[in-house]
Amino acid sequence: MAAELIKGLPIAKQIREEITKNVEGLKAKNVSPKLAVLLVGDDEASVVYAQSKQKVGGNLGIEVDLKVMPADTEESVILDQIKAWNEDKDTHGILVELPLPKHITKEAVMEAIDPKKDVDGVHPVNRGYLMGGQEHLALIPATPLACVALAERAGIELSGKKVTLVGRGDTVGRPLASLLIKRNATITVCHTRTVDLPGECQNGEIVVAAAGFAGLVKKEMIKPGTVVIDAGINPTPDGKSICGDAAPDVADVAGVMTPVPGGVGSLTTTIIMENLLKAVKLQGLA
Amino acid sequence: MAAELIKGLPIAKQIREEITKNVEGLKAKNVSPKLAVLLVGDDEASVVYAQSKQKVGGNLGIEVDLKVMPADTEESVILDQIKAWNEDKDTHGILVELPLPKHITKEAVMEAIDPKKDVDGVHPVNRGYLMGGQEHLALIPATPLACVALAERAGIELSGKKVTLVGRGDTVGRPLASLLIKRNATITVCHTRTVDLPGECQNGEIVVAAAGFAGLVKKEMIKPGTVVIDAGINPTPDGKSICGDAAPDVADVAGVMTPVPGGVGSLTTTIIMENLLKAVKLQGLA
Repeated sequence: MAAELIKGLPIAKQIREEITKNVEGLKAKNVSPKLAVLLVGDDEASVVYAQSKQKVGGNLGIEVDLKVMPADTEESVILDQIKAWNEDKDTHGILVELPLPKHITKEAVMEAIDPKKDVDGVHPVNRGYLMGGQEHLALIPATPLACVALAERAGIELSGKKVTLVGRGDTVGRPLASLLIKRNATITVCHTRTVDLPGECQNGEIVVAAAGFAGLVKKEMIKPGTVVIDAGINPTPDGKSICGDAAPDVADVAGVMTPVPGGVGSLTTTIIMENLLKAVKLQGLA
Repeated sequence: MAAELIKGLPIAKQIREEITKNVEGLKAKNVSPKLAVLLVGDDEASVVYAQSKQKVGGNLGIEVDLKVMPADTEESVILDQIKAWNEDKDTHGILVELPLPKHITKEAVMEAIDPKKDVDGVHPVNRGYLMGGQEHLALIPATPLACVALAERAGIELSGKKVTLVGRGDTVGRPLASLLIKRNATITVCHTRTVDLPGECQNGEIVVAAAGFAGLVKKEMIKPGTVVIDAGINPTPDGKSICGDAAPDVADVAGVMTPVPGGVGSLTTTIIMENLLKAVKLQGLA
């Protein structure tokens, strides 16, 4: 029996409708939400992501100011640009596409962003609010938020559930752990040093795959009926498409599953825009 | 068979010897480490903790400047005091005893402390560094650090181990989860909404009790031979002593256990002093 799929697009559409209404409300108060995106170099995926933000933003009445800098840009130039955006009252969100070129200190760039404009949730203050259970103050990375939004909007109860989270990275695994704890899930965090990954996955009523490793979560690891949320975005071997962290045949045993492509990843850009509206609010403008 | 006990005092002594050496090294460079402690009101436990810091600091050659303010002090006065300490080059650490009186916004006070002087690890930036895996930059709360120090210094391997963590609070449970993930443990975080706490505890090779609820972890929940680290500090029913989150007879089945009193709690003041020396380093003075 094939798993029921939670598709990202209808949920993204729901959220976009909410955003559109909010944007109209803000414009009526003469606040025109604007997101600044910095792209340094020409990493292929980053170019696509940046353009996608412009497109999605445009459809929502949100201006996305994309600034492209050459790969050999000095760190000080990047920091100056961020400072200018921090000080610009008309710029409400700042996002720097990752990865950055190797000569740039990623942490210095992240910490330069005004936490209240940090729509990617990479500043330590935002991570700290999240860890401290102060979600209302935090701007939170889009992928973990997308995982939670898909589950919640598809009517999947998280409270009291056993969730096995595969992955402990700082953009998905760890922030997602905080979100799930706050939502009363009993979480187990697995990673490369976990001795019995199949056993841990079989223990979960919900398994979230967020390791960034194609096909890591296999059919044999999943108890029939399990909810599988796949946050993986990996290139397929031929480089022509993307695939998840769950092997395709996991769908044969899972009860409910998010597809890749078309699941978690199809929500992230929309959630960045939702974060922008939260940023507007945190700046006292809404 | 009774569990082998990991006693806190010998380990505290080890750490104090290391601190004493470091303090001597700093004084040779004309840096005299100084901790400022603010006590607002007369909460009985807080008075004891503050005095204990003065005593332990004194024995280590560390000056502890204890400032006592009445319970009805206005928030602005507290914030001004913190600002003065932030700006004072000779004060390297700032700690505000909790709980604060109810008319004070705890979060405002925490965020007022210079993160580099925040020896209690309560500022969002420090929580964020911890969550982001940047422990070298973070000042981290003493109790979770004490749990890890007891385990590591008693030779208990954490890497690859299944750890059941009972408690998700912001001073022990959540920061400890980050520390354990970083040390390659496979952690399960349990809390009041966990459906099968006994089952989760029985799954753990190590159980950390950090819920702040006397006797919550019972003998029947513990697999023979388990390592039990008890971070609970609860008043006994007669109010004359303290007891842990693990019931006393857990010691009959556990393989190794930290006692209460005399375990985790006997390390925390010492670790505050260790944090002070890290703060000195983060301030570029060591």
